[in-house]
Amino acid sequence: MVELFVGIDLGGTNIKIGCFDSELNLLCKTSTPTDADMGPEAVVEKMAEAVEQLVAEAGFELQEVCAAGIGSPGPARYSKGIIVNATNMPKFKNVPLRQMLSERLGKLVVLENDANAACWGEYVLGAGKGVEDMAFFTLGTGIGGGIITNGELVHGWDDNGAELGHIIIYPGGRKCGCGQRGCAEAYASAASTAKRAAEAIEAGAESSLKEVLEKKGKITSKDVYEHLAGGDELAREITDKTAEALGILCINVLHATEPKRLVFAGGMIAAGDVLLNRIRDYFDEHIWALKKETVEICFATLGEDAGIIGAAALAKRLYEHNKGKS
Amino acid sequence: MVELFVGIDLGGTNIKIGCFDSELNLLCKTSTPTDADMGPEAVVEKMAEAVEQLVAEAGFELQEVCAAGIGSPGPARYSKGIIVNATNMPKFKNVPLRQMLSERLGKLVVLENDANAACWGEYVLGAGKGVEDMAFFTLGTGIGGGIITNGELVHGWDDNGAELGHIIIYPGGRKCGCGQRGCAEAYASAASTAKRAAEAIEAGAESSLKEVLEKKGKITSKDVYEHLAGGDELAREITDKTAEALGILCINVLHATEPKRLVFAGGMIAAGDVLLNRIRDYFDEHIWALKKETVEICFATLGEDAGIIGAAALAKRLYEHNKGKS
Repeated sequence: MVELFVGIDLGGTNIKIGCFDSELNLLCKTSTPTDADMGPEAVVEKMAEAVEQLVAEAGFELQEVCAAGIGSPGPARYSKGIIVNATNMPKFKNVPLRQMLSERLGKLVVLENDANAACWGEYVLGAGKGVEDMAFFTLGTGIGGGIITNGELVHGWDDNGAELGHIIIYPGGRKCGCGQRGCAEAYASAASTAKRAAEAIEAGAESSLKEVLEKKGKITSKDVYEHLAGGDELAREITDKTAEALGILCINVLHATEPKRLVFAGGMIAAGDVLLNRIRDYFDEHIWALKKETVEICFATLGEDAGIIGAAALAKRLYEHNKGKS
Repeated sequence: MVELFVGIDLGGTNIKIGCFDSELNLLCKTSTPTDADMGPEAVVEKMAEAVEQLVAEAGFELQEVCAAGIGSPGPARYSKGIIVNATNMPKFKNVPLRQMLSERLGKLVVLENDANAACWGEYVLGAGKGVEDMAFFTLGTGIGGGIITNGELVHGWDDNGAELGHIIIYPGGRKCGCGQRGCAEAYASAASTAKRAAEAIEAGAESSLKEVLEKKGKITSKDVYEHLAGGDELAREITDKTAEALGILCINVLHATEPKRLVFAGGMIAAGDVLLNRIRDYFDEHIWALKKETVEICFATLGEDAGIIGAAALAKRLYEHNKGKS
C-alpha cells in the first residue's frame, strides 16, 4: 500500500487540494469554489468530497491517505485546530475545523496558518531547501509572514507569531489597516505600492501611470512595475520606497531570529529582479558593519502550490511523528 | 551523592561563578578578576581553580559536579564551543573554550552567549517563569537580547540571533556603534540615554543636568533618572524617547516571535516604574487594533545572578539530555 498525503489551501474564494506521495511529489490537484454563505459543515463536506474524488481520480484508495493538512487564514487557534473567525466566511465562528475534517475523513488532520503552510512548503521543497533558519514574506494585498528557526515554525504564544508585515519600519508613518502607523505592509504590499502611486499622481506627480489611473480609475502594483520597466520616474520612486521598507524589514527580522535565507513570495514578485535587486541594495546600505552578512534574499520558487505542498508536508510530519510515538 | 551544577559568567573584568544544587538553588558563589593580558590557558586555569575552590568551600567533592555552563560575550560559535574574539581579551582568537574547560575539569561543559544565558536564567527561575515564549532585553552600555520560542533559545543560523538592540526603529536616525542608523541601541541603551542628554545640554537645552555635566564632565543614565525624579523637563524628554524606542522595539519583536512576556534587565531598570510605565504607554499607543494584546512588559527579577543561574540551568539541561540518551 502506498502512503498518500493531502494538502489543502483554504482561501476566501477557493479551496485548493493536492494529493502527494510520501516523497511529496504532487500526483494531482484540484480547486473548488467556496462562497461566503457556506457554513462550516458545508465547507467540510465539500472539502471531503473533493479529497475523495481527487484520490480516486489519481487511481488510489482513500485508505491509502495517511493524513491531511489545511492551511487557513486566521485568526485561529492553530494548535487547537480551531478557526476563530474567517473574514470571507461570516458563518465561521470558533469552528473546530481540524476535528470536523478528521472525523469526516477518518484521517489525521493538521491545521496551520496559510502563510506558515506556504513558508513550510518553501522550506521543505522550495527556496528554503538546505537551511535550518528562514524567514518568509508574502507580498500580496497585505504582507504575511513565516519564520523557521532551528527547523521549526515559530507560532508565538497566541498563534500570532511572524506577523512580519506589521513590523513598524517608519514610526508615525502611513496608516496601516491594522491600526498601526508605518508598518512594512503600509508601504510594501501590492495594495500599498499601488495606492502610493495613485496618491502621488493625485497630488500632481508627472508619470506615465497617470493615463492608467484616468482610464481604469485605479492603478495596480503590476501597472507600477510595467511602467518602471518603461522608464517612468514615479514608478521608480514608488518601487524604491517599497524596496527600502523591505530591505529594512529584512534587517529587523535578521536581528530577531537570524534566518540564513529571506524568501519573498506573492503576486508582487512578478516584478522580478528589478525589485529583488533594490531590496538587496537597501539591505546592504542599512545593515550593520559589525560582521559581513552572507544571508540570502531571494524569491520563492513554488508559486501558488506552496500552500498545498506545505500543508501536505506538515501532514506527513505529524503522521511520522505519531508513528514514531506508537 | 548529590548532583551539582556550575554556572560561569565570563565578563570583561570578572569571572563570576556559582555552584547550584539539582533544584538550581544557589549554594555559593565567587568572583575572580581577569585582565586583558591573560591568554586562554590562564583564563581556563583560573576558572577551573575557582570552581574547585568554590565546590570545596561548599563542602562538596568535585566529582559531585555533573556539568558546567559558561555565558560569554561574542562573537563566538556557541554551538561549537568556540570564542572567535573577545573584545576585552585580545589574546582570545578562535579559542575552543568549551573543550578546554571540559578537559581541565573532566566535566560536561556548555558555552552560551552571555545575554542568552541571562535570558535562560530569567526564563527558568525569574521573570519568565511560566511562559513558553519570551523576549529579553539587557539595557546596559549597549542593548543585548535573547528570544525563547516554544521553550527554546533562538540562536540563528550563525549564532547571532536576538541582536535585539540592533533592530532599526528610526531609519536614518542616530548613528549606532554597529554602523547602522536608528537602532534601538542608539536611543535606549544606558550610554545613548546619557549621550542624548549631554548633547541636548551642549545644544543649549535648559536642565538641572547642566550642573552635573559641568561638574563631572559627563552625564550617566543614572543622573538622567535622578533628575527625572526631581522634575527636570529635559530628563523627562530624554526618558520619553528612550521609552518610545523600547515600546516600538517591543511591538516589532512581538510581531516576529510573539513572546508572551517581554523582560527588561540591565543597569537601566534601576530607573524603576517611571521607565517601565512609559514603555507600556508607548507600546499601547503604537500597537495594532486587530486584537487586544495581553503581553506582559516587565523587569527582570534575578539581578546580576541571572547569568550564572542561566549558565547552570543550561548545564543541567545538557546533562539531563545526555543522560536521557545513554
